[in-house]
Amino acid sequence: MRLLEERIRRDGRVKEGDVLKVDGFLNHQMDVELFAEMAREFKRLFEGCGVNRILTIEASGIGLACIAAQEFKCPVIFAKKTRTKNIAGDVYTAKVMSYTSGTLYDIIVSKEYLCSSDRVLIIDDFLANGAALDGLIRIAEQAGAEVVGAGVAIEKAFQPGGDRIRARGIRVEALARIKSMSEAGGIEFC
Amino acid sequence: MRLLEERIRRDGRVKEGDVLKVDGFLNHQMDVELFAEMAREFKRLFEGCGVNRILTIEASGIGLACIAAQEFKCPVIFAKKTRTKNIAGDVYTAKVMSYTSGTLYDIIVSKEYLCSSDRVLIIDDFLANGAALDGLIRIAEQAGAEVVGAGVAIEKAFQPGGDRIRARGIRVEALARIKSMSEAGGIEFC
Repeated sequence: MRLLEERIRRDGRVKEGDVLKVDGFLNHQMDVELFAEMAREFKRLFEGCGVNRILTIEASGIGLACIAAQEFKCPVIFAKKTRTKNIAGDVYTAKVMSYTSGTLYDIIVSKEYLCSSDRVLIIDDFLANGAALDGLIRIAEQAGAEVVGAGVAIEKAFQPGGDRIRARGIRVEALARIKSMSEAGGIEFC
Repeated sequence: MRLLEERIRRDGRVKEGDVLKVDGFLNHQMDVELFAEMAREFKRLFEGCGVNRILTIEASGIGLACIAAQEFKCPVIFAKKTRTKNIAGDVYTAKVMSYTSGTLYDIIVSKEYLCSSDRVLIIDDFLANGAALDGLIRIAEQAGAEVVGAGVAIEKAFQPGGDRIRARGIRVEALARIKSMSEAGGIEFC
């Protein structure tokens, strides 16, 4: 998606440790006009797939997921990262290793909100090693729901997550796929 | 806002410890059509206030904040709850005591995204003891930004947060204000 690639080139910054800092428009400050364009692109890509639930993970996927859900006219469910007293015991759960923080955590979704008749589109801001996406797929599988695909804003295609998940037969659409990046050399898209 | 009150009556459940469970439509599964109606109401309430930034806190405020931001045609900034390596060192920060989890945590906002010319509307899903809202106000104050007000979906008006923050001269608008609630007696609105 050219609009997103241009924005990444303009406002993204490559930091050491393969970090792409896009917190000016994607995952700290959020440009909702850009999100609306991205949501329309997800709708175009997954039109006719019968999506009736969007599944994401807190925190930075939620904004994009909600604006995408307006296109699909369906609710969003966000997986929570820890068990709080507001969540009942009856949950689907998966362990996820965070690339950003280097910690292992549980994600949970209440069994009330996903079931075997659901057709789930997973939305997230980033796909790199695929740990979060993999956890969300396992949550959907526990519910017996059909994962029609995953839509992510930015895929670091030089990291293994996207290809690994595609190899399992799950459709993954990234609006910007980064082939390589470096602090000195900038960003190259696929 | 009658639509929200009716939804709370229909789908909300009162649990022990003054917990109102609304995770079927507000803060786990999210009904984005309802969010759009709430966003229009925030726009009506804060029309003409010159809002150019919406500030919220991860995680459950983000969806509503993004949909409200579409009405105000401005970006959202969400305060993060811990320091991750994706956030630069130059941050505004405040300590917040979580009512839900009983823990003290830091919230941070990058100094890049809030400044003294900003007119900030704070959006969140819940207002009870006001700890999160108070933290967000302190963040905005550190930036020298003007807080034009706070819009929350649900205020537990029997808890002290809302009145305490209003007493400091900050406009607080809640779309549903709960006067009292109990597992046996249901929910009474103000």
